[in-house]
Amino acid sequence: MTFIEQALAILGDAQVLTGANATRYATDWTGKYTSAPLCVLRPGNAAEVSELLRAANATGTAIVPVSGNTGLSGGAFADGAALLSLERMNRIRAIRPEARVAVVEAGVVLADLHEAARAEGLAFPLTFGARGSAMIGGVLSTNAGGSNVLRYGNTRALCLGLEVVLPDGALMDLMSELHKDNSGYDLRDLFIGAEGTLGVITAAVLKLAPLPRATATAMLALPSLGDALGLLNRLQEATGGAVEAYEYMPRAHFERLAELRPELRPPFDAAHEANIMLEIGATAPRDATPGPDGTLPIAAYLESVLAEELEAGRLLDAVIAQNEAQRAEMWARREAAAEVAFSRKPFVANDIALPLDRLETFFARMAAALPRLDPGADDLSVAHLGDGNIHYTVYPSHDDPAHLDAVMQLVETQVRDLGGSFSAEHGIGLSKKPSMARHKNPVALVVMRRIKTALDPSGIMNPGKVLPD
Amino acid sequence: MTFIEQALAILGDAQVLTGANATRYATDWTGKYTSAPLCVLRPGNAAEVSELLRAANATGTAIVPVSGNTGLSGGAFADGAALLSLERMNRIRAIRPEARVAVVEAGVVLADLHEAARAEGLAFPLTFGARGSAMIGGVLSTNAGGSNVLRYGNTRALCLGLEVVLPDGALMDLMSELHKDNSGYDLRDLFIGAEGTLGVITAAVLKLAPLPRATATAMLALPSLGDALGLLNRLQEATGGAVEAYEYMPRAHFERLAELRPELRPPFDAAHEANIMLEIGATAPRDATPGPDGTLPIAAYLESVLAEELEAGRLLDAVIAQNEAQRAEMWARREAAAEVAFSRKPFVANDIALPLDRLETFFARMAAALPRLDPGADDLSVAHLGDGNIHYTVYPSHDDPAHLDAVMQLVETQVRDLGGSFSAEHGIGLSKKPSMARHKNPVALVVMRRIKTALDPSGIMNPGKVLPD
Repeated sequence: MTFIEQALAILGDAQVLTGANATRYATDWTGKYTSAPLCVLRPGNAAEVSELLRAANATGTAIVPVSGNTGLSGGAFADGAALLSLERMNRIRAIRPEARVAVVEAGVVLADLHEAARAEGLAFPLTFGARGSAMIGGVLSTNAGGSNVLRYGNTRALCLGLEVVLPDGALMDLMSELHKDNSGYDLRDLFIGAEGTLGVITAAVLKLAPLPRATATAMLALPSLGDALGLLNRLQEATGGAVEAYEYMPRAHFERLAELRPELRPPFDAAHEANIMLEIGATAPRDATPGPDGTLPIAAYLESVLAEELEAGRLLDAVIAQNEAQRAEMWARREAAAEVAFSRKPFVANDIALPLDRLETFFARMAAALPRLDPGADDLSVAHLGDGNIHYTVYPSHDDPAHLDAVMQLVETQVRDLGGSFSAEHGIGLSKKPSMARHKNPVALVVMRRIKTALDPSGIMNPGKVLPD
Repeated sequence: MTFIEQALAILGDAQVLTGANATRYATDWTGKYTSAPLCVLRPGNAAEVSELLRAANATGTAIVPVSGNTGLSGGAFADGAALLSLERMNRIRAIRPEARVAVVEAGVVLADLHEAARAEGLAFPLTFGARGSAMIGGVLSTNAGGSNVLRYGNTRALCLGLEVVLPDGALMDLMSELHKDNSGYDLRDLFIGAEGTLGVITAAVLKLAPLPRATATAMLALPSLGDALGLLNRLQEATGGAVEAYEYMPRAHFERLAELRPELRPPFDAAHEANIMLEIGATAPRDATPGPDGTLPIAAYLESVLAEELEAGRLLDAVIAQNEAQRAEMWARREAAAEVAFSRKPFVANDIALPLDRLETFFARMAAALPRLDPGADDLSVAHLGDGNIHYTVYPSHDDPAHLDAVMQLVETQVRDLGGSFSAEHGIGLSKKPSMARHKNPVALVVMRRIKTALDPSGIMNPGKVLPD
């Protein structure tokens, strides 16, 4: 039997899609990695995933897992491969408030998990712009980051247990709810962030956090990025580490945003070079109990810190959200970042990380080096500043592939020289494979290839991704 | 050339020890795993480790890495193997306060790192009783836990970068200082906790935390362990998660301690069934600024919470440390736990983890099942209660090996039935290999073996450890 015949036998006609029905699953948000898969498979449970992988392994059929298709690196590109969609496996199996865990299937949409946790007075704190489509399987497979990593860590830090179907169809049950478990090699963290190249994640146990009792959200305008880093340190110091989000946006972001999304009003009357969206979360009751004048201590506190900064001339302007609508607008301006960045073409997108104390040097070096390479080029940076993670997009003056590559290499070289990473949170997929070949430690690449071969000897899992050829 | 001849050529005579000189390196603290190694190698840097491993690989010589020799699972047992001591590689290469990282070699003693960080106003928060001898290499290789995991996470959560020499001698440089780095498989976490079976960790980048501005330490007496869990939840809730340590000790611990260490006075005049050593750390200035009467808000706050608990009858007694000496004594009582547990023989030691909401059930089940198996048996539990991690020691009435094994299996079965782990923080080594064979997911064992074979095809690294035969 061919693989498709076997897949039909396992799933039934309705869950094996081809032709036009398959197209939407292979449509890439960035527009760069839209593919023509052999078929789309929609299993309903891990046992079906297991049978499908056994059949794929026997027939040498390439399998590309896909969940929300919101990745930015081409990790779900599937020309000629069977695209395995996890979307039907979308059950939140349990939320256990006393244990502060959620047990979820890979197809659960991130925003649905947010809502289910909130209903129990808890939070799954990982969040980013695509949360309305992104699914847990993809979140785990890319070790997604986002806006709250500063306080809560990335996906890896929020996952306790995992269920994985291996390339040969074996089901590995590591669905632990434990905070400590030293029983052999850390397989969980190996599959998290492997972008589907080692197996298919089908379910997970995720950590929940107490919902902050109150939040204070503000937009800040500063003279420069350097001032923003100093202010972050003072805020963390003053609040004992309660900063949940510290998102940097430059003047250019708001200029573009005004064209693309005019309904989102600019944060300040004047335009400023360095802008921060700040959110502080209060978890202790004493910070969230209204004072005699009705003000929350956390908000009053933030106001006093900001007043001091304004006084000292380190802050140019500040607005604190007075209600949920204002807060939502502040977040919406930030979360339009990918839309803003990719609205102009050609672009060279980078998702880089740098040690915090070297961010300014990076920008200074790029400001000197980019015009030398391409005097007509422009750039745009939106950053999870507290993590040293910059979404740094360059707009070269022309889209000659060799030129685009030269721009990419310029950025990478600067990043490498400063001890940074060419890939902070979006993963490798197809787009960063050349960067992996150029900059990843060569011994680490050898080890990765040995692991890939050991776990997927037939090479059926998401072939051609992550590891350089 | 034999391996020893090659080792002499690489290190010189002074750093290759045999016979009596080698004995102290192979002396096990528990007394169960003292071994007779072929030799002891004392390399001074990673390049020498690399040469030694290349020679070992070529001659098929078994290599057992050892650092402080404070492990409790026989992970450094080295009969006939070359014992590779990291003790000379004990440089703290850098403490970078602004980046909050320490760059250390594997032979740095944990307490030395504590001191170096403190000198910069920072903390390396991982701590446990053996910190005066344990070295970073062993801490990383066992993914050590300890008393502050509740707030700061275990070793894995505190490590950003790693330098590893692979079994073939290749040096893998993953010495990142970044908080986000999604560039391929998570090799760092694979080597952390691998107990030296995949390579030798030679250096690491570790995260530092701000030193708490003030701490409040207390001993609490409660009617039962169940009451202690309820109180922990209320304390976390009230302080916004500022509990740094929450260590459970039963009446029997203090009875034994009085015999072994009479200089440590009992915490209370009366003996109580359930005792907790609590420490809260204040990181925000408002909690650490003395009030008009000179009391720190954090201490006043703790006092008021405890007064409420006493009032409600949920707490039987409480003492708050009034000075550093009283605090030190509270810690000393807890840190004598291993000494206390192993002072009576025969014993069956377990380092188990359970979901928090099932701890009481576990104790109830053991109280019913243990007397059925061995009416003369006794037990003792000291726990990192907030992590669900219990050091559960059983004292069987006789030391027939089959009986000891039956006791071990009884404990494990109860743990497994409640979704727990037979190994929380001490690792597998030799002592928990039978447990791995019985209770680890069999697919996970297959994957671990494939990884071991892929990275160490000659099987020279710490042979016979971790993976069941």
